[in-house]
Amino acid sequence: MSQRTIGVTEVALRDAHQSLMATRMALEDMVDACADIDAAGYWSVECWGGATYDSCIRFLNEDPWVRLRTFRELLPNSKLQMLLRGQNLLGYRHYEDDVVRRFVDASAENGMDVFRVFDALNDPRNMEVAMKAVTATGKHAQGTICYTISPLHTVEGYVKLAGQLLDMGAESLALKDMAALLQPQPAYDIIRGIKSTYGEDTQINVHCHATTGVTLVTLMKAIEAGADVVDTAISSMSLGPGHNPTESLVAMLEGTEYTTDLDMDRLIKIRDHFAKIRPKYAAFESATLVDTDIFSSQIPGGMLSNMESQLKAQGAGDKIKQVMEEVPRVKADAGHPPLVTPSSQIVGTQAVFNVLMGKYKVMTGEFADLMLGYYGECIGERNPEVVEIARAQAKKDPITVRPADLLQPEWNTLSTDAAKLDGFDGTDTDVLTYAMFPGVAPGFFSTRAEGPKNVGKTEAQLKAEAEAKSDSGNAVT
Amino acid sequence: MSQRTIGVTEVALRDAHQSLMATRMALEDMVDACADIDAAGYWSVECWGGATYDSCIRFLNEDPWVRLRTFRELLPNSKLQMLLRGQNLLGYRHYEDDVVRRFVDASAENGMDVFRVFDALNDPRNMEVAMKAVTATGKHAQGTICYTISPLHTVEGYVKLAGQLLDMGAESLALKDMAALLQPQPAYDIIRGIKSTYGEDTQINVHCHATTGVTLVTLMKAIEAGADVVDTAISSMSLGPGHNPTESLVAMLEGTEYTTDLDMDRLIKIRDHFAKIRPKYAAFESATLVDTDIFSSQIPGGMLSNMESQLKAQGAGDKIKQVMEEVPRVKADAGHPPLVTPSSQIVGTQAVFNVLMGKYKVMTGEFADLMLGYYGECIGERNPEVVEIARAQAKKDPITVRPADLLQPEWNTLSTDAAKLDGFDGTDTDVLTYAMFPGVAPGFFSTRAEGPKNVGKTEAQLKAEAEAKSDSGNAVT
Ligand SMILES: [Co+2]
Ligand SMILES: [Co+2]
Repeated sequence: MSQRTIGVTEVALRDAHQSLMATRMALEDMVDACADIDAAGYWSVECWGGATYDSCIRFLNEDPWVRLRTFRELLPNSKLQMLLRGQNLLGYRHYEDDVVRRFVDASAENGMDVFRVFDALNDPRNMEVAMKAVTATGKHAQGTICYTISPLHTVEGYVKLAGQLLDMGAESLALKDMAALLQPQPAYDIIRGIKSTYGEDTQINVHCHATTGVTLVTLMKAIEAGADVVDTAISSMSLGPGHNPTESLVAMLEGTEYTTDLDMDRLIKIRDHFAKIRPKYAAFESATLVDTDIFSSQIPGGMLSNMESQLKAQGAGDKIKQVMEEVPRVKADAGHPPLVTPSSQIVGTQAVFNVLMGKYKVMTGEFADLMLGYYGECIGERNPEVVEIARAQAKKDPITVRPADLLQPEWNTLSTDAAKLDGFDGTDTDVLTYAMFPGVAPGFFSTRAEGPKNVGKTEAQLKAEAEAKSDSGNAVT
Repeated sequence: MSQRTIGVTEVALRDAHQSLMATRMALEDMVDACADIDAAGYWSVECWGGATYDSCIRFLNEDPWVRLRTFRELLPNSKLQMLLRGQNLLGYRHYEDDVVRRFVDASAENGMDVFRVFDALNDPRNMEVAMKAVTATGKHAQGTICYTISPLHTVEGYVKLAGQLLDMGAESLALKDMAALLQPQPAYDIIRGIKSTYGEDTQINVHCHATTGVTLVTLMKAIEAGADVVDTAISSMSLGPGHNPTESLVAMLEGTEYTTDLDMDRLIKIRDHFAKIRPKYAAFESATLVDTDIFSSQIPGGMLSNMESQLKAQGAGDKIKQVMEEVPRVKADAGHPPLVTPSSQIVGTQAVFNVLMGKYKVMTGEFADLMLGYYGECIGERNPEVVEIARAQAKKDPITVRPADLLQPEWNTLSTDAAKLDGFDGTDTDVLTYAMFPGVAPGFFSTRAEGPKNVGKTEAQLKAEAEAKSDSGNAVT
């Protein structure tokens, strides 16, 4: 039997600890695994971007660019991969195109190979500049489809979006399922649709979280449909809100017409390394192991707990049911955006406001921007009545152009402002840090010289805990 | 699209807590879930047998027969299911046929509907009397194939065993994967083989544990191959050494040509009930979430930790590698028994002895019995040289007959002996308790009047723990 080799992207160094332990893992807790990761046979190693940049400067006193260069050095044979939020880069607003290009160039120069470019609203215009910038550096530009479920989202719609991304020069496509919503059959149908429309050699990478307990089956069906690469996390950094275990993927494919070419001896070493590290960050882990509520509520777990705390802060914890019923209506008014950062927060907060203060009586600035097109276009039309209310409250007109088209060149201003900060080192990468995190960068620059801070527990603390636990364990038995 | 309905056996009331929390769950922590379980649409509800009987009398001061009758009352619309170790019943030796029949009759009279009958060695002769007894009561006799991997175990071999079980009158077959070793492709092949050999209407139930993280995919492939019923546990009682989550199974099948007919609103209530209960038993849980080692070592996790503690007790903890290499040799000498209770302990202990004291220099009585045929026949021939050593050491001859054929009628003796015990209530079920657990029954009879003992934490303890934890959580952040 001739076997097809499935590529694997290991996410332990980025998304796994972002999802399991609030992105808190220090670089020093990763370095010892790198030699084995580099030799295990992965298609790529996701290790940067997403929330890691923010976390590095906010919590870990680590320069994210040092982290990137360290990975480049320790993983010489691997393709390094990052997650990039299109025109937002790794920050929380749209940046002018020149800033986007400078960020991509710096990332490529410092060692990045594969750029997974996405937009929370699936608006291709918000991905285009970043993707073209990646292609210009000669690196791998991966266009991303954020998967969600709504009355307007169809297999055909996803296949169409795939075509737009390919037209933009995507070297491969990512089917990204951040909420673990992607069930086996739609995964199969979307991938078959893309392959049969644009050619069997269209590379498709599949990214699923494990939250709902279903998505290893989704990866199986995706592979049967022709998926080329799938994302997994080494087992000791897997499951719950994280990802499916790499070793389980290998075992799943044994005896089938697919294989992975991964080196199991290396995987075991990587696993053992992180099995030792993970308990250090237990304080940042959530207890959720499996949660299938999202299939009925359509509300991601993180969004639900945000809304719950907002309600509790207002002494209205009993209104969560009403808010959960309000979410789909707000989402429909906004044209059915996928619920992922930042749209999940924007829609969730507005649903809370609607329940507490009356329907659209008070609108957040962000929700008004969403309704007026300042985040880009959604798949559905926005409710014209609500657009009107947004216009009146925000005193801004709706737009139909690409949001970043309204921005003026800003690199010089950003450079000048950054240069005034204590500890600024004069590099473009420091300007980028300031551009993306203007509130956090000043503090980071001023403390950077103190060096990285590990927020995990120490060996001694872990040992003391284990001893306390085994005492109480004996008492119970 | 016409959909095929897949039956589901819910295992929360038996195997789930046996696997996750050492069988410690008290009946009182299950009763409030029963109304929802009864109405959820399961094919059957596994709730008795396995280790629950032992645990009831050893740890919980609960009469197992009261538990069974309580389930019968609280689950009037459900088929109750139990796991029965053939000629061993729920104990640890072979019983004479009359005792086996009396146990089956009493179980049926007290409400049992589906008897999953298995034998650790897959020796059909050890299942036959129990299966025929079940059929005689008009209840459902399910013949079981214990799945294992060895050089001698083939798809054809499993298909042949299925035929032997059907010939014996099995109304359905169970493919039982206690070690989470059953990968998707062999599951597909075995089920296809059985269906195409014995007819598509041969009912096949699939039982997988979740330990290796692969087996929800296995259930998908099993269903595609024609499996009729699959075993799952409600999500709040799932994963790790337990089973795949029931709600994930439902979500997995959405949009496919298969469906479950389960009532999701009921599932959510069942889930919420056990989400509250599970933390009470945290002290009994193991930390293992996913473990794929078994695919390379072929040694189940529980067996490995047993051997480790045996070695440590002898101050030879450093010899675990040698023991792990010895296991497959001992297993081969014994004719490749599946490694499941009790064969896993018997083979594991002998491997430890061989490493510590020299190859078969000292043989355990149990291993000698295994080599001499006193547990039944394995798939492979036993190594004649080792049989010779066993004969010399145990001073017994090898046998080829069914082990229970050597037993004399024993019911009267058992009754007489039981009658002498303090607290014996004069019933046949008490005789059965004494027969299966002669060491534990006397203590249980004498304390039974004190009523059930809940070994879980109390609400107050849980609250205090949660408060302590949230304090330390804040301190770390
Ligand atoms: Co992700
Ligand atoms: Co089981």
